[in-house]
Amino acid sequence: MKRIVLGVQYDGQPWLGWQSQPHGQTVQDMLENALQSIATHRVQVSCAGRTDAGVHALEQVVHFDTEIDRPVQSWVRGVNAHLPKSIAVRWSKELDHDQTGNQEFHSRFSARSRTYHYVLYNHPVRSPVLNGRTGWVFRALDENKMRQAAAFLLGEHDFSSFRATSCQAKSPVKQMYDISIHRRGDLLMFTFRASAFLHHMVRNIMGSLIVVGNGNHEPQWLQDVLVSRNRSIAAPTFMPDGLYLAKVEYDPKWGLPQQPATFNWF
Amino acid sequence: MKRIVLGVQYDGQPWLGWQSQPHGQTVQDMLENALQSIATHRVQVSCAGRTDAGVHALEQVVHFDTEIDRPVQSWVRGVNAHLPKSIAVRWSKELDHDQTGNQEFHSRFSARSRTYHYVLYNHPVRSPVLNGRTGWVFRALDENKMRQAAAFLLGEHDFSSFRATSCQAKSPVKQMYDISIHRRGDLLMFTFRASAFLHHMVRNIMGSLIVVGNGNHEPQWLQDVLVSRNRSIAAPTFMPDGLYLAKVEYDPKWGLPQQPATFNWF
Repeated sequence: MKRIVLGVQYDGQPWLGWQSQPHGQTVQDMLENALQSIATHRVQVSCAGRTDAGVHALEQVVHFDTEIDRPVQSWVRGVNAHLPKSIAVRWSKELDHDQTGNQEFHSRFSARSRTYHYVLYNHPVRSPVLNGRTGWVFRALDENKMRQAAAFLLGEHDFSSFRATSCQAKSPVKQMYDISIHRRGDLLMFTFRASAFLHHMVRNIMGSLIVVGNGNHEPQWLQDVLVSRNRSIAAPTFMPDGLYLAKVEYDPKWGLPQQPATFNWF
Repeated sequence: MKRIVLGVQYDGQPWLGWQSQPHGQTVQDMLENALQSIATHRVQVSCAGRTDAGVHALEQVVHFDTEIDRPVQSWVRGVNAHLPKSIAVRWSKELDHDQTGNQEFHSRFSARSRTYHYVLYNHPVRSPVLNGRTGWVFRALDENKMRQAAAFLLGEHDFSSFRATSCQAKSPVKQMYDISIHRRGDLLMFTFRASAFLHHMVRNIMGSLIVVGNGNHEPQWLQDVLVSRNRSIAAPTFMPDGLYLAKVEYDPKWGLPQQPATFNWF
């Protein structure tokens, strides 16, 4: 038995999120169908972090088990031939099942941190060539104020104020390791790295950063929101369009051929 | 009577090109319908350069005539409310009809040059988040060889070797003012500025640059192709996905609020 690990990229626009559903219009359903064509047996994959409808992944990490022997490229080029253009396997790695009793690799439980990008277009008029792949705010945003506000979120906190009611996480306490905000012309890129994220957490934080950036609230307000642990005080959930699961970090001992968590076009 | 000039951006993926057709699934049809909602009369627009199915525009320039008085923002925000997300008016400018006998502004005939970008993803595996908005070549490309080849196209030439049989231009002789090729990681951006372009000219040049970049031909071959004035000697037409009409240049006297011809994300 071997554990196959894959790096998967997708455009979330055509799909009703990551997680398999009876109607089948999800990334997981598409990927499992394509893998089954190569594996010739039923395949069920686990992922590092489920993404919602309309949310993209530069590099989602998934794994599944198989006894089939295939050249490592079959899990990339072979599978991609069975996937729609909006989904692709970018790399694969075969791990032997551990015989010594050490913990096995698991895409979700072995992850040390997750990194998300939110790309925002900040211009009075919407941009069709960015449609579906960036968020849009037409009022001018002050990135310095947003940086001041974001600093209150660093460290270990109870993030209940930014948690969807549908969230199934055991604990609302997460470690936020880093938040960066870069502007390039009319584009803003927000990068969040944390131990893990609650459901809708990045989109809820984005909604609240934006009302600071446009001057509706002072940066200090974000700390008040955080300590309130009350979802109804924070701003509404922001649109999914600009959200990308960029990187899942693992112990280097697994030797995964992961790619940089950056857009090479930013 | 006033002449209204618009800067229009669109994602070409959902549309069967610029030019109006009986079935109506074109950018021109969508734009004219939206303008009619604001003008309350039939509107026919002229554009600077027709684009094919799947080809995008950062800033197509169009004009039409009307006697209706509308605040200048109606031709932007008002019209955009009637357009799909893949099309937007970015700016508008009202020009009075000239009373002195001087030549009037015309989006096509007043244009001094056109600039196109071709964005190419050069990586062994396709990228879903770039799907439809960049071309893709999986074999490694040598941009220096492509630059050497492109230099043969500069200046005034008969570009028949890169002209589609469907081309309706009066003459195949055009002035190529500038070609630049920039690499940023796995992305290559080609920029072409010419007096005008023949039908499929950029995509046909791209096809031929790529077979130089991947080593199938030496740079000198592109000169042989050019002087042959024979379409069948050049490489096949390359995919439309990465092609953007970026800028149409006019005399500054018209005072058009045009935007830079650059992607702010490149």
